[in-house]
Amino acid sequence: MVSASVRVLGVDPGLTRCGIGVIDVERRTPSLVHVEVVRSDADEPIPQRLLRIGRGVEAAIDRHRPDAIALERVFAQANLRSVMGVAQISGIVLRAAAERELPISLLTPTEVKAAVTGYGAADKRQVGEMVRRLLRLQAAPSPADAADALAIAIAEGWRARVPVRGAATPAQQAWAAAEAAAKRRPAR
Amino acid sequence: MVSASVRVLGVDPGLTRCGIGVIDVERRTPSLVHVEVVRSDADEPIPQRLLRIGRGVEAAIDRHRPDAIALERVFAQANLRSVMGVAQISGIVLRAAAERELPISLLTPTEVKAAVTGYGAADKRQVGEMVRRLLRLQAAPSPADAADALAIAIAEGWRARVPVRGAATPAQQAWAAAEAAAKRRPAR
Repeated sequence: MVSASVRVLGVDPGLTRCGIGVIDVERRTPSLVHVEVVRSDADEPIPQRLLRIGRGVEAAIDRHRPDAIALERVFAQANLRSVMGVAQISGIVLRAAAERELPISLLTPTEVKAAVTGYGAADKRQVGEMVRRLLRLQAAPSPADAADALAIAIAEGWRARVPVRGAATPAQQAWAAAEAAAKRRPAR
Repeated sequence: MVSASVRVLGVDPGLTRCGIGVIDVERRTPSLVHVEVVRSDADEPIPQRLLRIGRGVEAAIDRHRPDAIALERVFAQANLRSVMGVAQISGIVLRAAAERELPISLLTPTEVKAAVTGYGAADKRQVGEMVRRLLRLQAAPSPADAADALAIAIAEGWRARVPVRGAATPAQQAWAAAEAAAKRRPAR
């Protein structure tokens, strides 16, 4: 039997602070599973920083085994260096999802804000407060990267297109087909 | 005894075609070790494409065990989508280098062209022809991504700052120190 609950891991990618939030959503009610912020030091070389952040995200995926991953989409900004760091982390997270045959979605900041606050131009404080209320927490998750990662996970969890685990990839489709074929056999 | 030869793996990052070139450099003379182009299909989802390219680069690193990796540096271009793909692959390659404790350098296209042709605005054909001559090949490597990856590796191999294997990382330094200490002991 398939559970009606879906687990989503949200990532707010950043080289200095990368937010990771895991929630379960059951009948549109989200519940906090895990939240953390992986940090790397600006003094460290970029490859080591990417390794640290990548390992942190992969460890969270492997520990909490989400049904889907959601990642904030990168846009061109004034600071190209910062965009590059975010794009590099995004590449690592996208690849980690593919490696684990997990579906991954990219959400824009506006989509996330609109989903959790009803207002696409909401500020950090408003997002934090809505995440606090939605997850029935005493205080808004801090720093903002933690709240943002949870907001991304909630927005994705509310979208109809989070697939049931097992339906997303060719390998999983093959498995489902094989299972269905086995069930059709008279014996067993 | 430490060999005077240094092995460099160059990467010309791209989602559709990612060039990988491995050379040995001994007294400024480069020799071809390996060249390949890993491809991914534009119809595939981005995460699967990144996984395919990332696995290809990592397999080449693990098979050819370079002393250093060199990667073409990404710049803002007209096509943001293409820049993002290249930045995502770069993140995966930078992280793969850090994971293996290998030094990795980022070279601009101008640096690479200037190093191999003496002219920073050289075109693809000129770069291919110089790579052919420098590596004593019958024909220029094709497609251009293959020649570019070799040009990146040659440019890096010619720079003084490729470290001798074993001197680059704390772990390797610790190993070298332990080895030296063992040699100083009277009884082996």
